[in-house]
Amino acid sequence: MKAINLSEKLSLFSEHWSPRIVGSYNGNDLLVVKVKGEFVWHSHEETDDFFLVLKGRITIRMREGDVELGPGELFVVPKGVEHCPVAEEEAHLLLIEPAGTPNTGDPRTAVTKKRI
Amino acid sequence: MKAINLSEKLSLFSEHWSPRIVGSYNGNDLLVVKVKGEFVWHSHEETDDFFLVLKGRITIRMREGDVELGPGELFVVPKGVEHCPVAEEEAHLLLIEPAGTPNTGDPRTAVTKKRI
Repeated sequence: MKAINLSEKLSLFSEHWSPRIVGSYNGNDLLVVKVKGEFVWHSHEETDDFFLVLKGRITIRMREGDVELGPGELFVVPKGVEHCPVAEEEAHLLLIEPAGTPNTGDPRTAVTKKRI
Repeated sequence: MKAINLSEKLSLFSEHWSPRIVGSYNGNDLLVVKVKGEFVWHSHEETDDFFLVLKGRITIRMREGDVELGPGELFVVPKGVEHCPVAEEEAHLLLIEPAGTPNTGDPRTAVTKKRI
């Protein structure tokens, strides 16, 4: 039983778009991720998608308009809504997803999320 | 569809131990709360209890030992585990709870959570 320090967890890896599991909440994974550049357009048919920016800035592109996020700002993409996260410079995020959610919305292209 | 700025939401109220709903994720409320002093010992039989410190420091007392949290640190109290959050100085937190969870573990003593 100890605190999970998000900066410390983020210092353990450098890959972009490769979320690491740092904890669990009611069957959801709590993840940290480093992002830079443009991800893929995707949606999650079964779950909302939670983003909290810890460092840097991201844009979540959606068909009906973009949302810009800086440190201390969060946004939840409603389930089924197509989106494409983009970061001009490296940004660090906290994500929450039901365990097993494919990061690309498609198990065939999704990364495997390691616990750290 | 816009970013939720946690500092901005926290600037809208001053009461301690009175969480405000700022968003939703898969049937969970996303809440910000200002805390100071000692809360009550309680547990949630049906849910884990998510705490992320945004500002200040808190101690989560538990029967089997305390967890100390500073900014950027999170802890999930497992469901059913008795705990008592304490903050010597005012601290600001992000909480995640299934909608309708009583903050004291008991609907008779729980505060009503307003959406802001």
